[in-house]
Amino acid sequence: MERVRLAAREQPGRTERDTDMRGFLPLALVVGVLAAVSVAAGGPAAAPNGITPIHGYQDWKVIAPSYRPDKDHIRLIYGNDVAARAMESGTRPFPDGTVLVKVAWSTRKNPSFPAAVEPGKFAQVEFMIKDGKKYAATGGWGFARFLGPELKPYGDAPTFVQECFGCHLPVKDNDFVFTSLARSPR
Amino acid sequence: MERVRLAAREQPGRTERDTDMRGFLPLALVVGVLAAVSVAAGGPAAAPNGITPIHGYQDWKVIAPSYRPDKDHIRLIYGNDVAARAMESGTRPFPDGTVLVKVAWSTRKNPSFPAAVEPGKFAQVEFMIKDGKKYAATGGWGFARFLGPELKPYGDAPTFVQECFGCHLPVKDNDFVFTSLARSPR
Repeated sequence: MERVRLAAREQPGRTERDTDMRGFLPLALVVGVLAAVSVAAGGPAAAPNGITPIHGYQDWKVIAPSYRPDKDHIRLIYGNDVAARAMESGTRPFPDGTVLVKVAWSTRKNPSFPAAVEPGKFAQVEFMIKDGKKYAATGGWGFARFLGPELKPYGDAPTFVQECFGCHLPVKDNDFVFTSLARSPR
Repeated sequence: MERVRLAAREQPGRTERDTDMRGFLPLALVVGVLAAVSVAAGGPAAAPNGITPIHGYQDWKVIAPSYRPDKDHIRLIYGNDVAARAMESGTRPFPDGTVLVKVAWSTRKNPSFPAAVEPGKFAQVEFMIKDGKKYAATGGWGFARFLGPELKPYGDAPTFVQECFGCHLPVKDNDFVFTSLARSPR
């Protein structure tokens, strides 16, 4: 997937200012073709900013559940060890190496107990990866979203992260993170 | 807490049939006094069936989230390693040693993103402990519920478990467990 990231962000001979529409279409095609080749080769498809799905987060600690009636989603927010420690201690900004994972399922009523709303079909997984230098343009966070069981990358171009970042701006004072640790008596 | 359990369930000179109201009040007083002494001594109060709160489950795997609009609760169901393996493999009945923990918070809207419903105040924690011999009368499961940050035991007498068990009867075919594993692509 490194090839995809290079193609999208560090194409030789281009500068950051060279983002007019003449250059956009060929660049998008290159990214698309490389992503398709990657999928055909059996690897997971990368988001347009080069981030690929992280595996094994199901064994990480859960920071909190959430429910989104507007999306009909029920969610779990996992954190790696760096994230879990920062959540526990309240450390802000989150250290480089923090990874947060938000998994969403469509909801269903428990077949034997309809009052309980529980996970139905897997809907999407989103990642926030903290690297202050690499992702300086978006608050130090690398964003990615993958849709459905096939983990289809969300977004058509690297600029898709502006949508993610824009939504997270209201929680700038919490280092752009909405989730807080769901505490229960220890 | 062993003393409490003995007082409630194995009081010398009493048989299981000797449960008329003449005996109930003094027995309840003994249980109450012993529980109060235990709390004053710093230990957690036991449920009327002798089960005390389990600590450290926050480090266990999460089996699933759930949402209960009727109770205004958002919940996490944790499982110990035995539970997590049985959930993953679909093993039923659950092996002795299985522990499931259901933590409930009242809900709140995220202050910066009201569309998201998230945990507010801690409401209660419930335990299901599998021991086919010890809890044979209730499907092999020991039930307990503790309310609020002070973990006040739910139930006034050991018979409180009939309420738990009665509610779980519709899922007898799933070894009396409502929760199923929330799966996401690995």
